[in-house]
Amino acid sequence: MIRIDYTNVMAETIGERDGILREELLSFRHFVLETHALIQKEKEKKFYFAKLPYQDVEDLKILAEEIRSKFEYFVLIGIGGSSLGTEMLFESLKDLNHNIFDKPKFFIMDNVDPDKINSILERIDIEKTCFNVISKSGTTVETIANFGIILKILKEKVGDRWNEHLIFTTDPEKGFLREFGRENNIKTLDIPKNVGGRFSVLTPVGIFPAAVMGIDVDQILEGAKKMDLICSVEEHVEHNPAYLIALTHYIANMRRGKSISVMMPYSEKLSSFVDWYRQLWAESLGKDGLGQTPVKALGTVDQHSQIQLYRDGLRDKIVTFIQIEKRDIDFKIPEDIPESIHYLSGHTLHEILNKELLGTKAALIKSKVPNITITLDKITPYNVGMLIYLYEMATGFSGYLYKINPFDQPAVEEGKNFTYALMGREGYSQKLEEFEELYKEKYKIEIQ
Amino acid sequence: MIRIDYTNVMAETIGERDGILREELLSFRHFVLETHALIQKEKEKKFYFAKLPYQDVEDLKILAEEIRSKFEYFVLIGIGGSSLGTEMLFESLKDLNHNIFDKPKFFIMDNVDPDKINSILERIDIEKTCFNVISKSGTTVETIANFGIILKILKEKVGDRWNEHLIFTTDPEKGFLREFGRENNIKTLDIPKNVGGRFSVLTPVGIFPAAVMGIDVDQILEGAKKMDLICSVEEHVEHNPAYLIALTHYIANMRRGKSISVMMPYSEKLSSFVDWYRQLWAESLGKDGLGQTPVKALGTVDQHSQIQLYRDGLRDKIVTFIQIEKRDIDFKIPEDIPESIHYLSGHTLHEILNKELLGTKAALIKSKVPNITITLDKITPYNVGMLIYLYEMATGFSGYLYKINPFDQPAVEEGKNFTYALMGREGYSQKLEEFEELYKEKYKIEIQ
Repeated sequence: MIRIDYTNVMAETIGERDGILREELLSFRHFVLETHALIQKEKEKKFYFAKLPYQDVEDLKILAEEIRSKFEYFVLIGIGGSSLGTEMLFESLKDLNHNIFDKPKFFIMDNVDPDKINSILERIDIEKTCFNVISKSGTTVETIANFGIILKILKEKVGDRWNEHLIFTTDPEKGFLREFGRENNIKTLDIPKNVGGRFSVLTPVGIFPAAVMGIDVDQILEGAKKMDLICSVEEHVEHNPAYLIALTHYIANMRRGKSISVMMPYSEKLSSFVDWYRQLWAESLGKDGLGQTPVKALGTVDQHSQIQLYRDGLRDKIVTFIQIEKRDIDFKIPEDIPESIHYLSGHTLHEILNKELLGTKAALIKSKVPNITITLDKITPYNVGMLIYLYEMATGFSGYLYKINPFDQPAVEEGKNFTYALMGREGYSQKLEEFEELYKEKYKIEIQ
Repeated sequence: MIRIDYTNVMAETIGERDGILREELLSFRHFVLETHALIQKEKEKKFYFAKLPYQDVEDLKILAEEIRSKFEYFVLIGIGGSSLGTEMLFESLKDLNHNIFDKPKFFIMDNVDPDKINSILERIDIEKTCFNVISKSGTTVETIANFGIILKILKEKVGDRWNEHLIFTTDPEKGFLREFGRENNIKTLDIPKNVGGRFSVLTPVGIFPAAVMGIDVDQILEGAKKMDLICSVEEHVEHNPAYLIALTHYIANMRRGKSISVMMPYSEKLSSFVDWYRQLWAESLGKDGLGQTPVKALGTVDQHSQIQLYRDGLRDKIVTFIQIEKRDIDFKIPEDIPESIHYLSGHTLHEILNKELLGTKAALIKSKVPNITITLDKITPYNVGMLIYLYEMATGFSGYLYKINPFDQPAVEEGKNFTYALMGREGYSQKLEEFEELYKEKYKIEIQ
């Protein structure tokens, strides 16, 4: 179950300066109807992610079971859209300290940070490790660099059968990984043509590693399917959760100056959901001088860090809380604690957590900070699947509101090209000249 | 060594619309001189953190060594200013996957999230665990709730000597922890009176756990001392690194509309430095409708997530990069890799990481996004000490620029009071009525 409570973004709760009028929401009725029809037509192309809940994953599950029984360590080599979704599934749906005692131990080599790569290499046994190398294009610098290092170590440590320790996930036809996989008989999984990185968590990019980690991927897809059904049927903004999230954020941003979208789960496990959301929201909508800046926060921790600012700083924020209604495990504060803290007795941690959320919401209402609460009855693969699809569709719909293409990321290329030039890649000498023209180090302070 | 390069916030690099003129910086000369004198006078009170580098920590180190040899698990119970600093020291200065094989294993019970607390309890052996309970006031709800649970488990599992598994860190005289510690003969460390939570990392709050984890705390204090010496002597904004960081951010915010301060280390280890910075910047300066929103990012990972937005979204950001110049461990991309990725051969991960940073900086310059680069020659306790003090002083100085008190957090109380009311604490019945008046759940969508 998923519930979206948007009472606290409404003008009747927080006033017209910061809140949204119901008439205002309803004035988008025709726009929503038209856009809804367009989206249904785009499901074979741009909105292809909407097809993913219906895919057949039986072969993926069989392969995952094989890997799970054969290896003790599973390392994902991938970055951005190739790792954030999987990281979210792992952290949401496995124990928070899984890697200390449980198997297969799971690591992500995303960054090219030697400290991180070394720390992982120190802790795995190469002979018992499967590496899943993920890149749609097959050319991502970080992924290929880390793969190059691992390839050498694999050949040294396991000899001829090195290719059995590798699984690639990439474009179905082209690119370096596809070709190298073909030449070397490496099991290679397909990323469907029409799905971009940040919308790819429900392809083999996320589904396969999740299955290896023993997560019920059928249930993730079931949840996504349910959300797709709702979003396909409900044409009214007050009944379609994805359009509602998109519209409330759009109005808050463009008409009330809420240029920051804070997402603050009251759950450690869901904190990585925000990292996934950050990419989705920022890379899809941060274009043409528009788009909100997504900000990650965590309850209750950030009550002690960010709430001062949210209540009393610039009035530029809309906050989305995520709340968990029930938990399998809970802890009760004992009766025999000292008098001065006795008001806590008999309450459980779960209760305190959710009452702190309520207290924080009331404080935000009082400061007229618009906020939405998404409640999951429990953290389950089904609910996480609903949540993923909900935000993918909200992002896709937002593209129409902002009149931008949410599926490209043109501003990312420039930095890559400068990096290629600095690495001495062929064909980039002009870019190197441009770099030298632009980049100076003139104003500095140095302290030994 | 620490180096601050602010070339790319200057108008001559990115233009006057987004950049700062040198005259503009220098026009604050008199203000800086006057404020500098005020700060020197305040070192016994508000700026007491400036005294901390000079404290004697010999007794703390002896106690830490004793704990380190006696216990296999060390659990910090504390939240916000009582945990973020220590988490930063641990993650910056110990291996990223320390807890998998190394000892003492270190955990933080900050949140009241049952999933987190359960995950930790599942992985520790209570009989071999020392709990360090940290709260200045001794009344922090999360800390006291988690302590209540641990106290019961301790009494059950280790019997009469339960108090030997506890160390408190709190106010030198009053509060629940101080009294309970006195009554039960629990070793209790002092948090100096004039230091608030977010400025307390260099008190026993951070120094003691760091020493237990085997971190060279003398070197941390040495670094902080060096930075204090520089900041105490340099009265000129172009030579005082703390004033420079404060002023560039202030001008960027108030005169160029940069209401977001992104901090983006190109180092996994330093990513927790940003969590500490977030609290410092937000809670100190987010007041009276003013203050920047601090945003955490990580290179290169967020190049694949946030750079699209930073370059092409709203022009509301100033970015601080943190770069590491040298590393003890590095990995070279082998020579015998396939032709199409051969441009990577011979480069190391460290090189690629820093070239990606340069590429990203050039791309930001091209989009006229102001950015500062802080370079550490290495990640050492000394350099981390410098960095901590640098940002504490920059924050303190910023208070004068914004004309607000950076040492209080008045807007945090409201949420706490509502929570107390919801927990049925005595004396809060009026607050409960206020809550019921404010809080409604009227507009909802629910999906099963």
